[in-house]
Amino acid sequence: MTESSPTPAPGDRIAFDDPDYRAAVVDLLAVISYGELVAFERLAEDARSAPSLAAKVDLATMAAAEFDNVLRLNQRLSELGADPYAAMEPFREPLDAFHQHTAPADWLESLVKAYVGDGLARDFYAEIAAFLDVDTRDLILSSMERTQHSEFVVEHVRAAIAADPRVGGRLALWGRRLMGEALTQAQGVAAQRDALSALLAGGIDRPGMDLAALGRMFSRLTERHARRMADLGLAH
Amino acid sequence: MTESSPTPAPGDRIAFDDPDYRAAVVDLLAVISYGELVAFERLAEDARSAPSLAAKVDLATMAAAEFDNVLRLNQRLSELGADPYAAMEPFREPLDAFHQHTAPADWLESLVKAYVGDGLARDFYAEIAAFLDVDTRDLILSSMERTQHSEFVVEHVRAAIAADPRVGGRLALWGRRLMGEALTQAQGVAAQRDALSALLAGGIDRPGMDLAALGRMFSRLTERHARRMADLGLAH
Repeated sequence: MTESSPTPAPGDRIAFDDPDYRAAVVDLLAVISYGELVAFERLAEDARSAPSLAAKVDLATMAAAEFDNVLRLNQRLSELGADPYAAMEPFREPLDAFHQHTAPADWLESLVKAYVGDGLARDFYAEIAAFLDVDTRDLILSSMERTQHSEFVVEHVRAAIAADPRVGGRLALWGRRLMGEALTQAQGVAAQRDALSALLAGGIDRPGMDLAALGRMFSRLTERHARRMADLGLAH
Repeated sequence: MTESSPTPAPGDRIAFDDPDYRAAVVDLLAVISYGELVAFERLAEDARSAPSLAAKVDLATMAAAEFDNVLRLNQRLSELGADPYAAMEPFREPLDAFHQHTAPADWLESLVKAYVGDGLARDFYAEIAAFLDVDTRDLILSSMERTQHSEFVVEHVRAAIAADPRVGGRLALWGRRLMGEALTQAQGVAAQRDALSALLAGGIDRPGMDLAALGRMFSRLTERHARRMADLGLAH
């Protein structure tokens, strides 16, 4: 440890001495980074079909913010001695599959997907971040902030439902499909990545989650999903 | 003029008192901004088909840098009392036409287009910026900086030609086509936007270009285009 690198808190140093902990953090930062990279591409693609120049610039602003997070997460991966691209590799298939199975049919489905999908990811990663050292937790939580995003989407979706109430029914179904597909893919990732699963189970000096705690986490995620659907004017 | 806004240099204040000058600057910032917005979309699209995650992140980095310029240019347009989106509107058709007529057939054509097309635009706007007040000139010149971009493209294109020399012939033709299409569209814009043409012709307190000077500018643009083609290992 040189003088120029920040001194970690004692608990953090112990945490990173545990190779399983380090592997779990690398996995987590990499899956978030790849997720943001794909989100960048998706939002930039949506910007192409935006109905106005102003909406185009709003979407491109979101896309650029996602990409800024990719660079910060990759920098941290490099600091941890990991190759960011190699670390992302195991998550390409499940995340690409999620997006293939939830290709939006139109501009409104894109907006709902951005809002509901990113919200779910944010909540899920925030739950996991609670188990991590403070530096990693702060990095993850700051990567997840996107208020500007939210207002823009809520406004557009509510206006579309006001103009044609049938749109609400279709988008409500779409929101449920997004939730189902996200759970399917998350389950697949958890089954394949031992370090990530072990993180939730706890370790030396670190509390974990028992089945009851996992159940409570799942309830919180579902509740917040329902609240987001309600924000958009959609029945859960 | 309030105390919080920067005091312009005397020459600049005179310049913006001239409504034709202000109209020309609004046109110029708007065409550059729309050009960078389209470049953002194009690079983000290219990132989707990048052959590796590392190349994907390189292209997305360029895309995000282009978009950052859009926000800065739009901010300046707003400061000048213009609606950035309305100001961009007249340039959508010619710029979209340029991109429709020069849709890259593959990844290498994308790279050459990014390098050669952006280089041409940069040189052209830098020539015009020489006629402008210092704040506008600095904003335009700083929007045009992209060294990182260049190295990445040169490396990829040279490697592809080394692997298969026939690629060089095809890409050399492609570079000539890009130059021809850019001139066609630029001519169309100049014919339609009186304020921009008047800027080149000069005004009160501002030197302009006579036909001989226009000819020399055109030679400089062609020379630099040839140098860029050579950088890529392509015959002009």
